[in-house]
Amino acid sequence: MTRTAASHADEALVAAMRRALSLATHGPAVGENPQVGCVLLDATGTVVAEGWHRGAGTDHAEVDALSHVAGAAGLTAVVTLEPCNHTGRTGPCAQALIDAGVARVVYALDDPNPIAGGGADRLRAAGVEVIGGVLADEAAELLRPWLTSVRLGRPFVTVKWASSLDGRAAAADGTSQWITGTAARQRVHEQRAMHDAIAVGTGTVLADDPTLTARGDGGELLPHQPIPVVFGETAVPVDARLRQHPAGLIELGHRDLGAALADLHERGIRRLYVEGGPTLASAFLRAGLADEVLVYLAPLLIGGPRVALDDLGVTTMSEVHRLSIHRIETLGDDLLVVARPRDTPTPAMKD
Amino acid sequence: MTRTAASHADEALVAAMRRALSLATHGPAVGENPQVGCVLLDATGTVVAEGWHRGAGTDHAEVDALSHVAGAAGLTAVVTLEPCNHTGRTGPCAQALIDAGVARVVYALDDPNPIAGGGADRLRAAGVEVIGGVLADEAAELLRPWLTSVRLGRPFVTVKWASSLDGRAAAADGTSQWITGTAARQRVHEQRAMHDAIAVGTGTVLADDPTLTARGDGGELLPHQPIPVVFGETAVPVDARLRQHPAGLIELGHRDLGAALADLHERGIRRLYVEGGPTLASAFLRAGLADEVLVYLAPLLIGGPRVALDDLGVTTMSEVHRLSIHRIETLGDDLLVVARPRDTPTPAMKD
Repeated sequence: MTRTAASHADEALVAAMRRALSLATHGPAVGENPQVGCVLLDATGTVVAEGWHRGAGTDHAEVDALSHVAGAAGLTAVVTLEPCNHTGRTGPCAQALIDAGVARVVYALDDPNPIAGGGADRLRAAGVEVIGGVLADEAAELLRPWLTSVRLGRPFVTVKWASSLDGRAAAADGTSQWITGTAARQRVHEQRAMHDAIAVGTGTVLADDPTLTARGDGGELLPHQPIPVVFGETAVPVDARLRQHPAGLIELGHRDLGAALADLHERGIRRLYVEGGPTLASAFLRAGLADEVLVYLAPLLIGGPRVALDDLGVTTMSEVHRLSIHRIETLGDDLLVVARPRDTPTPAMKD
Repeated sequence: MTRTAASHADEALVAAMRRALSLATHGPAVGENPQVGCVLLDATGTVVAEGWHRGAGTDHAEVDALSHVAGAAGLTAVVTLEPCNHTGRTGPCAQALIDAGVARVVYALDDPNPIAGGGADRLRAAGVEVIGGVLADEAAELLRPWLTSVRLGRPFVTVKWASSLDGRAAAADGTSQWITGTAARQRVHEQRAMHDAIAVGTGTVLADDPTLTARGDGGELLPHQPIPVVFGETAVPVDARLRQHPAGLIELGHRDLGAALADLHERGIRRLYVEGGPTLASAFLRAGLADEVLVYLAPLLIGGPRVALDDLGVTTMSEVHRLSIHRIETLGDDLLVVARPRDTPTPAMKD
């Protein structure tokens, strides 16, 4: 249904959806709610209001946009996700759009959430024209972590490591400061701030005593701090810097990945950043639980025993973990390779 | 001297030098002689003849260009390398230019060869105007392998390996076909054809029984075949495919890199392509004998024990081998990272 309709969407609607997608990114990438943007168009296709969602408990994008106009009778709402049909901490957006007198709703992605879905049907039943699927691929890319966590009922998992070009994470004596340069290290801090939690193994905690905070250029704490999650049986030492983390600390006391992801999802964690060390990163990869892989490659060679990944359960070439490279960036002298498991497609739309 | 003069070279000379550099690449990248190009300009700056060197024993670029004009009186010769002052298998180009009545000679690089150098002085002594240093950096880049071999008295060494993103060259059982895709493997064949010899360790010969020929898309032999050089004490088996190599076979019977490079240089080998395995590649890197590093990175993860490089003599971070990345290419799904040791600058000009 929606694909065919979408192909008839005119250029003004596509441009408005692009704007709505851009607005969506103003909202937080973390937390239980998706990033959503909305624009209201008048009959000439002119944007008369914009809105976006600022996180759980605040107005949804549609309601935010509606709050900027005196009346919405006859307007078109262009929104990146199917308006919700659910009363949570806020009311259902589908009803808000109906009450405001909106004539047409254009959206990108069907809401995959069984609790919140059904907004399009409710709108149609109230006589509102509905077009779905406009720039659906772009919206799915933006919401890939959220869609994955809804589909799989676990956090979206990003596995990150930094290595030399020959795949080493440290020299033989364990020193690793610094394999990558400042631009790459700053990027890591920005990525931490885009995740709800950071996963780390007890070996790394004991060896490196990391802070695992998200910090800016000047060392200042960024507004959002991901909570550190320690995998493994060994207790975090009482004087570990991790115990001073501003977001608190989750000590799992085990390294059962499936149980851990279920537990973290239950706690509202939707995006998990696996920082290492090699044992934990390898465990996530071996279990097929990495949704995105970030490899920082520094232009140096180290050799020796300290590989960035250890056993991945591969005994012969037919078993290798194949990735598709999504993006490559140059960060100072370093490379960042962003890749995804080849067998994990972008979560399918309902249609 | 030459730098100041070069800064006054007009645009027509720079354009002519660019053309001469392009012509130079028509000549063979292998063999003892450098790639050289030459154009002859009339008084208006118009190109009246072009030439390039086709390999040892054939006309040098200047003589090739002069052969295309009835007379060269008053012309400007623009040539990528200082005209030689040496009678080898062909006569000295400096004298040929003087005899032809050329009024001015513009060149890029001083000839670093103590036997062949001095051409500029000979030209000036004969009353020819000489300008050196025009596009010297571009010429030095083109001739980097040749300049390195002249300066160091050993072959220019290219160390190549292919690995997964995590630095493995094979799965645990030793299988490695195919880590990279067809585009990357075809590029390897083209690179073999740009080298005089291929270095390989006995371990690889015994394990893989490689042909080490340079082949085209259709499996056909390319015109130039690099000679395989086997490092190590173990004899190549009588039935090894390497014994059928069209360029013959050099069995060193040892793995003393310094002695081997001196021996190969003596045999006229100027560019050596080190294909592996990990032990041999690591030995060249550890010894600081890699002038260029080519890393083919495939978008897959393997883990386990089969690293592409083993011990590089690095015990702590201050000892790592730092590279500068010269170029990154995408070849099908794979990446090719072309890098150079950071401490080995482009060979300096004499001036």
